[in-house]
Order: sequence, then C-alpha cells, then structure tokens
Amino acid sequence: MALITLTTDFGTKDHFAGTVKGAIYTELPEAKIVDITHEISPFNITETAYIVKNAYKSFPKGSIHIIGVDSELSVQNKHLAILLDEHYFVCPDNGVISMIASEINPTKIVEINIHNHVESSFPVLDVFVKIACFIANGGKLDVIGKETSSYKKLIEIQPKVNQAKNIIKGGIIYIDNYGNVISNISKKLFNEIGKDRAFSITARRYTFSNVYAQYNEVVNYDADDIGLYDGKKLALFNSANFLEIAIYRSNLQTVGGASTLLGLNYRDTITVEFFDEDVPDFVTVN
Amino acid sequence: MALITLTTDFGTKDHFAGTVKGAIYTELPEAKIVDITHEISPFNITETAYIVKNAYKSFPKGSIHIIGVDSELSVQNKHLAILLDEHYFVCPDNGVISMIASEINPTKIVEINIHNHVESSFPVLDVFVKIACFIANGGKLDVIGKETSSYKKLIEIQPKVNQAKNIIKGGIIYIDNYGNVISNISKKLFNEIGKDRAFSITARRYTFSNVYAQYNEVVNYDADDIGLYDGKKLALFNSANFLEIAIYRSNLQTVGGASTLLGLNYRDTITVEFFDEDVPDFVTVN
Amino acid sequence: MALITLTTDFGTKDHFAGTVKGAIYTELPEAKIVDITHEISPFNITETAYIVKNAYKSFPKGSIHIIGVDSELSVQNKHLAILLDEHYFVCPDNGVISMIASEINPTKIVEINIHNHVESSFPVLDVFVKIACFIANGGKLDVIGKETSSYKKLIEIQPKVNQAKNIIKGGIIYIDNYGNVISNISKKLFNEIGKDRAFSITARRYTFSNVYAQYNEVVNYDADDIGLYDGKKLALFNSANFLEIAIYRSNLQTVGGASTLLGLNYRDTITVEFFDEDVPDFVTVN
Repeated sequence: MALITLTTDFGTKDHFAGTVKGAIYTELPEAKIVDITHEISPFNITETAYIVKNAYKSFPKGSIHIIGVDSELSVQNKHLAILLDEHYFVCPDNGVISMIASEINPTKIVEINIHNHVESSFPVLDVFVKIACFIANGGKLDVIGKETSSYKKLIEIQPKVNQAKNIIKGGIIYIDNYGNVISNISKKLFNEIGKDRAFSITARRYTFSNVYAQYNEVVNYDADDIGLYDGKKLALFNSANFLEIAIYRSNLQTVGGASTLLGLNYRDTITVEFFDEDVPDFVTVN
Repeated sequence: MALITLTTDFGTKDHFAGTVKGAIYTELPEAKIVDITHEISPFNITETAYIVKNAYKSFPKGSIHIIGVDSELSVQNKHLAILLDEHYFVCPDNGVISMIASEINPTKIVEINIHNHVESSFPVLDVFVKIACFIANGGKLDVIGKETSSYKKLIEIQPKVNQAKNIIKGGIIYIDNYGNVISNISKKLFNEIGKDRAFSITARRYTFSNVYAQYNEVVNYDADDIGLYDGKKLALFNSANFLEIAIYRSNLQTVGGASTLLGLNYRDTITVEFFDEDVPDFVTVN
Repeated sequence: MALITLTTDFGTKDHFAGTVKGAIYTELPEAKIVDITHEISPFNITETAYIVKNAYKSFPKGSIHIIGVDSELSVQNKHLAILLDEHYFVCPDNGVISMIASEINPTKIVEINIHNHVESSFPVLDVFVKIACFIANGGKLDVIGKETSSYKKLIEIQPKVNQAKNIIKGGIIYIDNYGNVISNISKKLFNEIGKDRAFSITARRYTFSNVYAQYNEVVNYDADDIGLYDGKKLALFNSANFLEIAIYRSNLQTVGGASTLLGLNYRDTITVEFFDEDVPDFVTVN
C-alpha cells in the first residue's frame, strides 16, 4: 500500500488539493492519501520545514511526502526527490528539507529531470504527483533524476550559541493554533549547552526559569479556583521537543494566546542564559 | 476494518492532526480515518459535545471516536474509554460525552490507566491513539482501565422547564457555518412539553410562532421575486433535531447570519412559552 | 471501488461533512471519500461551478461527485443525477453543473424523484448520499428519476465577444487562496478570437500585453536581486486554462494579493482587445 502525504500552501477552498488527490487515485486506486496541511502561509518555507519535520516521523517507513510550497521550477528552484530516514520526500529545493536533513543525513538525493518539456504553473500536479506515484510503484530514484549531494539550507532554523557556551540565541519559527510561540531551540541543544545548570529564558520583557513538560504543570490542583490558572504564561518543551512559550488554555479568537498577549512574533528572539550558580537576583522571573 | 474518527481543537494548519493520522496508519495500515472536525474553538467542551453527538450516529457500529479537546491528563481530568450505543469513545472526562450519555446510557466506561509513566503534552498522540488502536485490534476495555460508572456532566446543555410545564428556558450552544444559532432545546423536549399547544419562541427581541422543518418553507414560490425571501428569519428544528434560529440563505462573510444580524451569541437565552389557547395578542410575532 | 467526492459550503467545523462521510461508510465500507472542498462561500453557485469543473477531471472515470451547495429541494430547485464525461454528479439544479456542461454534453440527466416523502433540511445526507451509494453499487439512473434534457444555466460564466470579434468582455468568477483573480475567459476562447494577434488585457486601471504560462516567467533570474520581482503583477493562463491576473508570490495575510492590491473583486470586468497590428501607442502597459 502506498501512503502519500500532502503539505502545501493551497488552502482548502481552491480545487488544487482535490485535483492532486484525484490524480493520485487515478494512478494508484489503492493509495492512502493524508493531508498534513494545506494551510501553510503562502511561500513560507520555515513553517513548512517545521511542520514536515514534526509530522513525517509518525508515518510508516516508506511513506512518500509531497511538499508543495513555493514549488515552481526555475533555475534557482530545482525539484528534488529524497530518501531520508526511510521516508521519501518530493519537494522543491528551497530549504523545506533542511530542518530534517540537519539532523539526519539524506540517504539519497536526486534532482528531478523528467520535466524537460513541462511548462507548468501547477508543478505539484504535473511533476510531484507523477514522481510520487512512480516511487510508490517501486520506481528507483536514479531513473527520475541525477544524484546530487547538495540542497538549500535555511539559515533561520539554526539558533546561535556563544563561545562561552552559556547563552543560546534562538528565534520564533512558528505560531500554533493556540497562539503558542515555538522557537528553534531544541530540547537536545538546550540540554547539551545547559548541562543541568540554572537558567533564565527571555522573550521580550518576559523571563522564565522553568521549562515544563506538560501545560498543566503550572496548575496547583489543590487551589480553590483552578480557573485562575487559565491565562498563565509558561515555557515548555513541546511535543516536537522545541522550546515553546505558551499561555495555559489560550484561545486566539477570544482571550488571546502567547503571540498576541505577550507580543511575540514570528522571527522574534528568544534568549536562554545559563548560570553556573543559581539564577542571579537581578533576573526578575515573571 | 477499523474506522476511527477525530474531533479536536488542533486546527488544520499545525502538524498535530497529521501526526496523529500517521501514528494510526503505522499501527493499523488498513484503518479508515475520518476527520469530524479539527476546528473546535480551543477548549470548548459544549461545541465538542454538540458536534460529536450529531456526527457519531451516522458512522458504522463499532467505530472508534477520538475526542481531543482539553485532553491533558490531570487529577481533575481523567482519560476515559467508553462503549455507548455500540460506538467507542476515547476522550477526556471533561463533559464531552455527557450530551450523548444524557440520552443513552453507556454500556461500559473505563478510566484509562495505561499512562502511569507517560508525561505528555500531546495526550491524543501518546495515549488516545494507542487506546484506539488497541480497541480496533479487538482489545477489551477492561485491560486498559478500571471500570467506573461516573463521568463529568455539562450543565450548560440542559434546558430548564418550569413547574407549570408551559415554559422552556434554553440557551444557545452552537453557532454554525451559516451563522445559524442552535439551542439546547430538542424537538423531543419541545413536543413533550408542548403537547401540540400554540407557542411563542423568544430570542432577544425576536419572537417566532412557527417552527419549520426546512429552511425554504418560509419562501412563497408563487411570489414575483423569491429573492426577497433571502435574509428572512425563521425558527426550525434542524437536522440534529434541535431548535435553531436561522436566516434564510445567510452568509456570515457578506450579508451576515442569525448570530450577527439578530445579535444572538453563544450562551444567550432562548425561551419557549406554550399557551393553552391561541398565542395571545400581546405577543408580537416578527 | 467507489470513489465519491464532496464539494459543499458546510465549512469544516460543523458536523455536516463528518455526518455525510459516516453515512457513506455505513453503506459502503470500502468507499474512498475525497473532500474537494467544504469552503465554498455559502450558496455561491459560480464558485462551486469553477471548483467542480477544475477538480473532477483528474479523478478516475466512474467517480461520483456530490455537490452540496444550495441544495434544499423546492419547486425551483430540483435534484439531479447526471452522467457526463464518464463521471457522475449528484447535485441541485441550480446551475452548478452548467460550467462543465457548457463544454461537454451530458450523456444522461435524471431528475431525482425518490424523495416523495422526504422533508429534509439536510438533503445532502438524506438524498444525495443515498443516490451516490446507489450509483456506486451499480444502480441505474433511470431507477432514481425521470430523464430530462434541461438544466439551469449560469449566465455569469459566459464572457461576451463583440461582433467585430476583436473584444472579449469577461468577468472575475473566482479569487483563489493567493488572492489571484480568475476570469471566465478561457485560453480556448482567447486563442479562437485572438488568432495570434497582439492584444491588451485591461482590469480596472491595469493593462497587460503578455499572458504567461508560469508565474515565475516574470522573473529575470540574471538580476542582482530576484526578490525584487515579488509583488510584480502579471496575466497568465492558469492551470485551469482561464485568464488570471496574479501577483508574483502574493500572500493575502501579509503583503496582499491581486484582489486586494489591484482592487479587483468578484464580478469585476476583464476586457481583452485584439489589434490587427501591434498594440497601439495609446495603450499604456503597466
């Protein structure tokens, strides 16, 4: 059984996603097609990279992931088919793969060259679906393109560590459905640099000295009114293992979320400072 | 074949829904997965209860319904697996099930206790998917938890009837895609109390003395210009058999719907008064 | 295997789409169900026609397409089952089919008459699903209705050509996820009337004398900073082969799209004028 996922910026109103699925079912009547999302902000590579990285791993090995964001072919935007972590990715060479590939080396990358004669304003349909079906039918990557070892890297997704190794400077790469803001600082990096030292996390004028594992760890269930904890801000490692600034039980449509309440936006800086002793007194933790 | 449905407040942009589907397909390659919705307003239990109640019945007996709204485990929010009306529900014990369970007694409820060691900010993935796949594979509820007979009740979903049994006071529990407002007054209750008497339905300053079965019953198709009926307000028993205040051919994005045009909001009161004679003259019906 | 698609204005929050899918799986456990979209603007027939026309063709022959927009049964809105281009459509007779049927004659149209006794505010569930499952099981159209040759036509979707055959006046029928505006002028009509003559395309105060095949044909990749091309306006034949006014790499949520930046709305006029010689000097091309 072929399992093909779709991650695009098509939205869910236009016919694009439906057309792509029809084409896959025409070629592979028994395919399973799963929408990861069609709601990527148009042309946003960082969002795409974050979502694909967090979604693909839960799928069965051998799944084929079509990534249709900013995918028009050009001299600067080749089309790639990639085998990585036993998953296939069919995508433009615009950086979408670099967040995954920065942790796990691709097994094989080919630059797709089947479209010598295809002039298309809908490359996901005209190229990516064909490639995905070819792979699903057991086709080899070598047949559809030339092997390459390079792919574009996204700079944005890499936090910086100072030489003294006591400060990580990261950035906000994603804001989720609840308004929680997600940084590019992974739990792994945090622990490697932190080595169990005390720390303060600063985002704008807010400072945190704890990182939780569940949102409701901020709640004291012995309190008289646990509703008072709604709206409390916290830092946690989210389920994707990135450092996240969240509001407990937030709602962007009503009370707001971390992004709106704390004024935190895409690309804002998040700083973690580690201390060899306790957090010094001059750091005011909210 | 296992059929598993998903009802969550994840939204459709984040990776959460995709990740959950991937995990299910990894465990059960032949599963059918159906999105009921991922657009529940964050943490809104009443909306969830209304949607799950109306959706689950049309699915085949034996279907497994994962409800992922406000599902973080805590001392006050247990995880339940429920057999009810020959359907399985895997959900938090926060009231989501009470709208269904108020009409049909659960066959069996167990409090899930497989997560002794699981600390998770993504319980739908880490707990509910595992339970759903276990059930789909024929697993017994007793194995995954301790039987219980209690579950949290939602007060909001119960309309009140006065002692003279001539007045029902209900509330708005849902606003749909067309802006139509749906009360918690069921056709069944309406008929039981009403016993075919004349009635007036009041919502804010609007009064109705008819309840229709189709939206277009307000239209006189012999009229010169049936377009004039667009925007007409009406009461009807909707397809879920609840009393609804609607605008004929409404559109929230353009002309507005009942919620915006009549100023009716979530939790507003809807009153039905029954009369032993005709509707009295002092009741002005719009 | 039955493949059934859904195109509706239900939105994705309400239970309607989920309920419909449950009913189909109850009847046809092995069905494939594909959402074309549930995001049609409420009651918008032109949008529906555009989307269905562009989506259906990519599906396998024999697919069954349920169209649930403005589908309440009335004396003026019959229910139809149609065989056209080897695809089945189950839909209201409100014009949704006319954009497809204007190019390809239906093989067979029947006016559904199974609902003599069905009074329903949810006809997609109560009628269309039954019909679709009946067809999927090999049922004949004659059994479910009376053959007819007529169906309602949408006037809006037809551009006008002047007698001298040098001017096409069309209108905007759709605005897509990127804010690009799509006219009802097909590439076929454009070429038939144009006969390779020079032309100018006018939309409000903007004029174009080129029509591209890919969005990025406006980019000069030898330029120092190709980012400068973001936001450039262009005309192209889109993947649906309609004349479209677009903004290169637009984003309605941030910088805007053709609709917002050029002030182009649904139903605005797009004019193409053809010239026997070159485009005259008095035509200022932006």
